[in-house]
Amino acid sequence: MTNVLIVYASQFGNTEKMAKAMEQTLLESSEIKCQLKKAETVTETDFINADAIILGSPVKMGSIDWQLKKMIDTVMGSLWVANKLVGKVGGTFASGGGFGKGGAGAEITFTSLANVLMEMGIIYVPLPKNTQGYKFGGIQWGAYGVSANEDMQPQTLMENQLEVCRIHAQNIARVAKTINGQNLFQCELEN
Amino acid sequence: MTNVLIVYASQFGNTEKMAKAMEQTLLESSEIKCQLKKAETVTETDFINADAIILGSPVKMGSIDWQLKKMIDTVMGSLWVANKLVGKVGGTFASGGGFGKGGAGAEITFTSLANVLMEMGIIYVPLPKNTQGYKFGGIQWGAYGVSANEDMQPQTLMENQLEVCRIHAQNIARVAKTINGQNLFQCELEN
Amino acid sequence: MTNVLIVYASQFGNTEKMAKAMEQTLLESSEIKCQLKKAETVTETDFINADAIILGSPVKMGSIDWQLKKMIDTVMGSLWVANKLVGKVGGTFASGGGFGKGGAGAEITFTSLANVLMEMGIIYVPLPKNTQGYKFGGIQWGAYGVSANEDMQPQTLMENQLEVCRIHAQNIARVAKTINGQNLFQCELEN
Amino acid sequence: MTNVLIVYASQFGNTEKMAKAMEQTLLESSEIKCQLKKAETVTETDFINADAIILGSPVKMGSIDWQLKKMIDTVMGSLWVANKLVGKVGGTFASGGGFGKGGAGAEITFTSLANVLMEMGIIYVPLPKNTQGYKFGGIQWGAYGVSANEDMQPQTLMENQLEVCRIHAQNIARVAKTINGQNLFQCELEN
Repeated sequence: MTNVLIVYASQFGNTEKMAKAMEQTLLESSEIKCQLKKAETVTETDFINADAIILGSPVKMGSIDWQLKKMIDTVMGSLWVANKLVGKVGGTFASGGGFGKGGAGAEITFTSLANVLMEMGIIYVPLPKNTQGYKFGGIQWGAYGVSANEDMQPQTLMENQLEVCRIHAQNIARVAKTINGQNLFQCELEN
Repeated sequence: MTNVLIVYASQFGNTEKMAKAMEQTLLESSEIKCQLKKAETVTETDFINADAIILGSPVKMGSIDWQLKKMIDTVMGSLWVANKLVGKVGGTFASGGGFGKGGAGAEITFTSLANVLMEMGIIYVPLPKNTQGYKFGGIQWGAYGVSANEDMQPQTLMENQLEVCRIHAQNIARVAKTINGQNLFQCELEN
Repeated sequence: MTNVLIVYASQFGNTEKMAKAMEQTLLESSEIKCQLKKAETVTETDFINADAIILGSPVKMGSIDWQLKKMIDTVMGSLWVANKLVGKVGGTFASGGGFGKGGAGAEITFTSLANVLMEMGIIYVPLPKNTQGYKFGGIQWGAYGVSANEDMQPQTLMENQLEVCRIHAQNIARVAKTINGQNLFQCELEN
Repeated sequence: MTNVLIVYASQFGNTEKMAKAMEQTLLESSEIKCQLKKAETVTETDFINADAIILGSPVKMGSIDWQLKKMIDTVMGSLWVANKLVGKVGGTFASGGGFGKGGAGAEITFTSLANVLMEMGIIYVPLPKNTQGYKFGGIQWGAYGVSANEDMQPQTLMENQLEVCRIHAQNIARVAKTINGQNLFQCELEN
């Protein structure tokens, strides 16, 4: 059994919609157990029990949403100190709009999220550009749901964007299943 | 007189087109002297003589184009060691495409270019989002010319994108003129 | 009169110590009015009244502290939408430790803070490397107080680190005074 | 058999010393074939034949060294277009000095290198902080050899820094061996 934990914050519901699409596709497999948690409710134990960890955030003012960041600082912080997540598998997703054609902070958000996973010693699963629907809902670091147009008018996430979320979640679960239970990192014994 | 130096690399001509739009608008002013240089030909003296420094690059494989980076490493490197550009004014621009909706490295490119200017002790002029045409050719760090569509098919830079370049160059020149000749940083005497 | 606003979050008191060193040196000048605000108490009006804006954060789990990020998302967000801070002057500072020799997120933190200022259309004042004490308390983006050693043991900020804070604050105030009251950006009329 | 390709640029020999320490430890295993290539000599075929790809760069003017970047732009670029490296395993290392305590571009360099691997669809292996010697030669993204002190005086890489390189290379090879030959990403058929 592969345990996947999806933790997210959501402001207007887009990141949540992406998270739920990931959860639904994973629940279809009898070999995967998936837990979906909002940033406010996830616990240290949820992280420790997971084989794969997926973090999702709105792009907010150019970087990680403060509610997800609060969780990272207050829940993941002590897991980092104690090296509790070393060797697990992970990935990220985000939704964002942004005035204009630029990324508007999407890259800083993904880079920061990926950095959190790497600080934990988590093996990072990117999103290949030959993933179906990539051009609608993908970026190299993971699934990316564009939730507003150039004029910052909100737009509903499309089915082909949610499909990228599903494929991304399945990819991460597949890597986690392959890695699962093996100690692939040479680390010092915990004191 | 305000001396503006524009240094760029270009692969398919888009970054060059942006650089030339900047040069043309600056040359219309009798109070500005503008020098346009390719990365291969710019010299240390060009930098030292400038009041404002504008760097432009294609987004290439997710970061600064290697030809501009070669110039940064081999020409700007010794200027950095000797603190020769401290207190000048600067800005950046880039062109890029990228498969899909994501920034495709635009943010890493701009962050890296801005970092180079900051390492030099250069005051950085961003691009306000209420700049005319911003949504077609702007990003917070500067002018950004999207030169390919979602399917990575090349597209010609539009007039409204070039207009953002002109406004950005004028903004930078205006800040440089205001700062010009004043020692605004408290620094140690050179040894 | 130049109005400087310093906004910070602090966890163990180091970022606060840096903020207070900045405030004290600025208050010595009769031409500067300085306001020091914790992230929890700053208001939109404080930002609008300032000529210079200085943001300070602990490096927390590799990026901006969640309490400062909450302020950025909830207070600065609407200022960004309304373009209220365009053309002001700004800078950043941070404190951090980090296990090992690496930056441990210092660069991601500074890059993210600088990005926030740039999104606002704020002219960014870096810290030149020939600033006195730079090697103890500086990084290209601003004052950086190392608050823990390689083994993550807390260490008190030294006087030469606080001196970098004072010089950095004075530099920012000096640039703000020079720029003050001029409309250096060509922007669209607000609607 | 697991094929590991190490590609690096080196300016003063430090990054090369790290690369050779990695190669030597990998060659001790009869199950690993390791190829060590300078940026100037590596070919597309070298990349295609590898199961694991390790990129190493000096931190140069705050980001990737131009010689490695030239290789990324001119050799890896077409591999990216053709999705030739999707599903492989990878990691990064760097050496750098930097005036002062800050990262001096180490994070931007690692972030950019990691970005290149992610654009390729390569599974990224970080360096856990409970790796032996981490505090001397590690950072979350990989092995990091500090090659100069606070005054920018060169310093020889120490044995405990090279030991981190060896462990990092072994970790990457171990993940590659586990992943090897499996198609873990759901991708579109190449056209």
